[in-house]
Amino acid sequence: MKIKVGILGATGSVGQRFIQLLEDHPWFEVNYVAASPRSAGKSYQEAVSGRWLMSTPMPDNVKNLIVQDASEIDAAQGKCSIIFSAVNMAKDDIRKLEKAYAKEGFAVLSNNSAHRHTDNVPVLIPEINPDHTEIIHDQRKAYGWDKGLLAVKPNCSVQSYVTPIYALMEQGYKVSEMIVTTLQALSGAGYPGPSSLDMIDNIVPFIGGEEEKSELEPQKILGKVQDGKIVYNQNIKISAHCNRVPVIDGHTACVSMKFADKKPNLEEILDIWKNFKGEPQKMELPMAPLQPIIYEKENDRPQPRKDRNNDKGMAVTVGRLRDGNVFDYRFVGLSHNTIRGAAGGGILNAEYLVKIGLIEI
Amino acid sequence: MKIKVGILGATGSVGQRFIQLLEDHPWFEVNYVAASPRSAGKSYQEAVSGRWLMSTPMPDNVKNLIVQDASEIDAAQGKCSIIFSAVNMAKDDIRKLEKAYAKEGFAVLSNNSAHRHTDNVPVLIPEINPDHTEIIHDQRKAYGWDKGLLAVKPNCSVQSYVTPIYALMEQGYKVSEMIVTTLQALSGAGYPGPSSLDMIDNIVPFIGGEEEKSELEPQKILGKVQDGKIVYNQNIKISAHCNRVPVIDGHTACVSMKFADKKPNLEEILDIWKNFKGEPQKMELPMAPLQPIIYEKENDRPQPRKDRNNDKGMAVTVGRLRDGNVFDYRFVGLSHNTIRGAAGGGILNAEYLVKIGLIEI
Amino acid sequence: MKIKVGILGATGSVGQRFIQLLEDHPWFEVNYVAASPRSAGKSYQEAVSGRWLMSTPMPDNVKNLIVQDASEIDAAQGKCSIIFSAVNMAKDDIRKLEKAYAKEGFAVLSNNSAHRHTDNVPVLIPEINPDHTEIIHDQRKAYGWDKGLLAVKPNCSVQSYVTPIYALMEQGYKVSEMIVTTLQALSGAGYPGPSSLDMIDNIVPFIGGEEEKSELEPQKILGKVQDGKIVYNQNIKISAHCNRVPVIDGHTACVSMKFADKKPNLEEILDIWKNFKGEPQKMELPMAPLQPIIYEKENDRPQPRKDRNNDKGMAVTVGRLRDGNVFDYRFVGLSHNTIRGAAGGGILNAEYLVKIGLIEI
Amino acid sequence: MKIKVGILGATGSVGQRFIQLLEDHPWFEVNYVAASPRSAGKSYQEAVSGRWLMSTPMPDNVKNLIVQDASEIDAAQGKCSIIFSAVNMAKDDIRKLEKAYAKEGFAVLSNNSAHRHTDNVPVLIPEINPDHTEIIHDQRKAYGWDKGLLAVKPNCSVQSYVTPIYALMEQGYKVSEMIVTTLQALSGAGYPGPSSLDMIDNIVPFIGGEEEKSELEPQKILGKVQDGKIVYNQNIKISAHCNRVPVIDGHTACVSMKFADKKPNLEEILDIWKNFKGEPQKMELPMAPLQPIIYEKENDRPQPRKDRNNDKGMAVTVGRLRDGNVFDYRFVGLSHNTIRGAAGGGILNAEYLVKIGLIEI
Repeated sequence: MKIKVGILGATGSVGQRFIQLLEDHPWFEVNYVAASPRSAGKSYQEAVSGRWLMSTPMPDNVKNLIVQDASEIDAAQGKCSIIFSAVNMAKDDIRKLEKAYAKEGFAVLSNNSAHRHTDNVPVLIPEINPDHTEIIHDQRKAYGWDKGLLAVKPNCSVQSYVTPIYALMEQGYKVSEMIVTTLQALSGAGYPGPSSLDMIDNIVPFIGGEEEKSELEPQKILGKVQDGKIVYNQNIKISAHCNRVPVIDGHTACVSMKFADKKPNLEEILDIWKNFKGEPQKMELPMAPLQPIIYEKENDRPQPRKDRNNDKGMAVTVGRLRDGNVFDYRFVGLSHNTIRGAAGGGILNAEYLVKIGLIEI
Repeated sequence: MKIKVGILGATGSVGQRFIQLLEDHPWFEVNYVAASPRSAGKSYQEAVSGRWLMSTPMPDNVKNLIVQDASEIDAAQGKCSIIFSAVNMAKDDIRKLEKAYAKEGFAVLSNNSAHRHTDNVPVLIPEINPDHTEIIHDQRKAYGWDKGLLAVKPNCSVQSYVTPIYALMEQGYKVSEMIVTTLQALSGAGYPGPSSLDMIDNIVPFIGGEEEKSELEPQKILGKVQDGKIVYNQNIKISAHCNRVPVIDGHTACVSMKFADKKPNLEEILDIWKNFKGEPQKMELPMAPLQPIIYEKENDRPQPRKDRNNDKGMAVTVGRLRDGNVFDYRFVGLSHNTIRGAAGGGILNAEYLVKIGLIEI
Repeated sequence: MKIKVGILGATGSVGQRFIQLLEDHPWFEVNYVAASPRSAGKSYQEAVSGRWLMSTPMPDNVKNLIVQDASEIDAAQGKCSIIFSAVNMAKDDIRKLEKAYAKEGFAVLSNNSAHRHTDNVPVLIPEINPDHTEIIHDQRKAYGWDKGLLAVKPNCSVQSYVTPIYALMEQGYKVSEMIVTTLQALSGAGYPGPSSLDMIDNIVPFIGGEEEKSELEPQKILGKVQDGKIVYNQNIKISAHCNRVPVIDGHTACVSMKFADKKPNLEEILDIWKNFKGEPQKMELPMAPLQPIIYEKENDRPQPRKDRNNDKGMAVTVGRLRDGNVFDYRFVGLSHNTIRGAAGGGILNAEYLVKIGLIEI
Repeated sequence: MKIKVGILGATGSVGQRFIQLLEDHPWFEVNYVAASPRSAGKSYQEAVSGRWLMSTPMPDNVKNLIVQDASEIDAAQGKCSIIFSAVNMAKDDIRKLEKAYAKEGFAVLSNNSAHRHTDNVPVLIPEINPDHTEIIHDQRKAYGWDKGLLAVKPNCSVQSYVTPIYALMEQGYKVSEMIVTTLQALSGAGYPGPSSLDMIDNIVPFIGGEEEKSELEPQKILGKVQDGKIVYNQNIKISAHCNRVPVIDGHTACVSMKFADKKPNLEEILDIWKNFKGEPQKMELPMAPLQPIIYEKENDRPQPRKDRNNDKGMAVTVGRLRDGNVFDYRFVGLSHNTIRGAAGGGILNAEYLVKIGLIEI
């Protein structure tokens, strides 16, 4: 008996990715799909007709699910206990809607940025900050929720550099400053996203709001739970420059990093990355990569098309570790922005919360 | 009566760009084309047949020039007084060949990296270090050259960030540290260069030798002539990460910069850039852009396809100046790598040397 | 004293191309720009801010023109005598609006498809059917227009194959059947046009409405004026398959053709193409290419990026003429879709009509 | 106990694809890898180091196989009974080498074009001409081979249009003339293949030798075995125009077809395609697609990136069936050129030959 899950914004590009990744999931089964009133009442197949973007066919089991109006929470009752949220609405409305679902007892795993800076909502990467989930008890107390909860995953740009950095911090090496330049894939902008007239024989050195997210969210992820709030880690300062490049999937980050005091040598870093394992690995969660960080030795790697699918799109692939000339070290990180950085990350979060019992079945 | 010029490596991609840019040059006229023995003896048209890469047709006046063997310097005698060198040979051989031409009285303007760290050869950007040309007197003395000389232009990656930085240094603001990530065009690799199988839906985070050039050459350009040598400016440290991206022409640089002591405010920087003029502008040299630095206010600029041709491909276009979060400021620079960064830069160098009389006609 | 012209839809991508091509036009000067009510009242610079798509800067002389509401024809009075129409409206509304301008005495040269099958409106390629302009007298009589007139240019896909075919027909060789596959550029779809997510590592084998236009319009262009109507040439049957490919500008057509009876040999065809000249060439109109058809001998040409700009984007470049295996012959044709196939074609039409006196100044 | 297979040219791009597709094959196991003398003696991992092009990691079981010199046939003895040949040599040398392996008792399944017009070698698509395998008895007799045999698969361009055409012919509808324009992927050219400088913002309307293959090979595939030879079907005439487009994998064909006498209506065609099954489907061979022809109803399909992987890259996806305007009908076909059109096709051939007992284990 699988756990029933629902998807808000199921007809959009991230919603479709959730449906694709959940097709044969050993624990979860999609049983509720919701979207805007425009799609409500249609079968999923009908609602998405002509807009199915995945490279594998639409799973048979969702074709005939009737799309519900995401704002009518009652329709979800009895249909599922976990809600993956990828709605496209005004931030205020998203905040209210996600809390309303949580109030009704659903475990809400959000893909949206709306609640990323709500101080009792964890921005969860379970290899890094599994302990942040303890804030969920505070959440429930503060909002009077019974079984409901709210957790979010970070912006798709940050996985490429936060996991490698964290692995070093975990071993006591304090990264104090980072300068990061990202080369981000088109799918990060949703569909239709950038015009082909802007992206053939061109790059665009700007993505609205992305640099702020890339600089601020890691401070929360690397922060600490204290008195019912997550306190940001201000000891690490990040400067991000975000570019859009003509790549379908896979965000690349060129990283320079500086340590506060003692620093590991190159060999130690490689060793730390190789041996890094988080809770999802120890628990052998279905969506967890065997190794969160894969190091590629060839000097022209990682490359998006060749490395984004490593370990079903859930591993961060790293390469080109070397001296920094200005900062201590440089490296390149890459992760799949719509799998590890979006739907896959959300599913892994749900798996972790089920495993530790915070999501009750 | 125009000054006759010759091109070594005339059949290659940079050689072709020289021929294209010199088509209607008011001062210069191509009268000597040389390449490898394989092409020698053929008409230029014949030698290049099927490999003309420019987007404008081959100029009529070069079609019937007979290609000479570049190593047979005698063939150039009487045919030209300036030599643009873009040969493709082993570095040692290039060094010897270029000096041999200089010895025979030719003014050699090189596109190659071979002599960039020869201590009495200037790496010339005439808006920045026109005074480095005084080293030519030392050259002539050291090597016993009469009229001959040797000057080189820097690597194609550096124009995008060195000119904007220099404009600030000229006003007394000392840039001490820079972290630069470049997104470099395919044409920088020559033809055929990267495989299309590596550059569609992909980027490559590595270009052999490029980061070293990007870090070291600016120190020479910003250095000083002292006792017959160019002394590198060690007060500025640069860390470069170079990526290849699927763009035909135009190198983009994402720059973070830190000042040694006092720093200008944002408005001052914009003002300095706007008003920056070098010798080529004051002398109104034919190849000089009206303004060496063009600032684009829109937040998603500069973009390679839209800005690389600014002022016939000779201007550096800059945008996104903002606070740096870790370093003082960040900005994006862009320049055309095969015009400003290669053939156009070489022609401008020749114009300057003619104007100040170091090239005697 | 230049002739004043106006542009309807001046802020759109074709409108911008008109403005770019007219920047230094020897006869014409842009003095009236109109668009939707949304842009009306703003300066052109302001109205287009952030959406200027051309690769050369916005001409100074249009920056401060006040954009008018295209539907308020009175505003054009006294400002211009020629109107280039590239509005984006419902077809019925376009038909009415263009006729309304003509009624008020303007010579309307339209880029839109709305009037292409109105039987007294010529679909003009002045190298092919200059005699169709005589229908303008019928137009004026039928609609009671005084100086006004209405002429349109064909769809951007047809120039690549209709001109080469016509050159042969002019010499008495009757093409009876053609099967054409086009590979069309992104700019043909306007901005933003196709999503980059659909056009990287992909082609799309369909363009809405394009095949019908590609099959039917040539029959009108190659038809005859008879009794105040243009009678379609039904003796030539065309089958078109239209693909969208990731190319910025330049439509390619792969053509198979069959002759009704006698057929030229390969050498004759090359000769006919080489010597083909139309009225625009004889009259030396400013926008006319020296040679309407350029034949490229190399077997891998024409290519969009290398050949689209031939003769300022106004020539059709042809290559790969060979036996057809099923039909008589095959060849590849290419033309610049937004210059020869859109704004440039419209300007050439205006030049021709001025020259023959149908547009009175 | 799996059947041991070997790969000639195992280090090249097609060789790698064989290794990838055979990783978990239920019947076959790679036990012999051979290449040029340059690679001989190295482990496979070492020999391919830095040139592994697949998007999944190199299978562990081949990493330590020692690469043999392909020309030393003795080394294969006892190691395998089936040889997949994808060597890159002069055609004459390939012909000799493949026959030499067959003489030694190996079943040689070739990817090369060398033997495609040898009259007793079948060009096999087992859904279409399984009966051509009977020629293998003649082969054995003619060459004195015992267990050995030689069969080839067709050029990668033809699967997209020959299967749909054959399905109709099987039902008694004789296709007499076809005009085909292909838009072919970069991987068809091998690695490195076309320069990125030729394939960004461009297409190339020529592929050396491809049109001849695309026109002639179908006549053999659709021919008949007679008196120990395969007699070509001259009743079908094909005219092909082949373009290279910036797509990684997946060849698209735009097809116009004419019938000799009676023709099916649109509905019948769709029905025939839907119900078409060949021997591989009836035998449920491991590599066989469930349905050889998948029809996509949406009018902008098939598209390479979205449809090339249908049924593990082995199905031909067809769309846009419609009236032809000049010929009877038009449609678009697409297949994966390095799976169905290369390694996958070769494996299916081997499976079929094993199943019918011509390859003895």
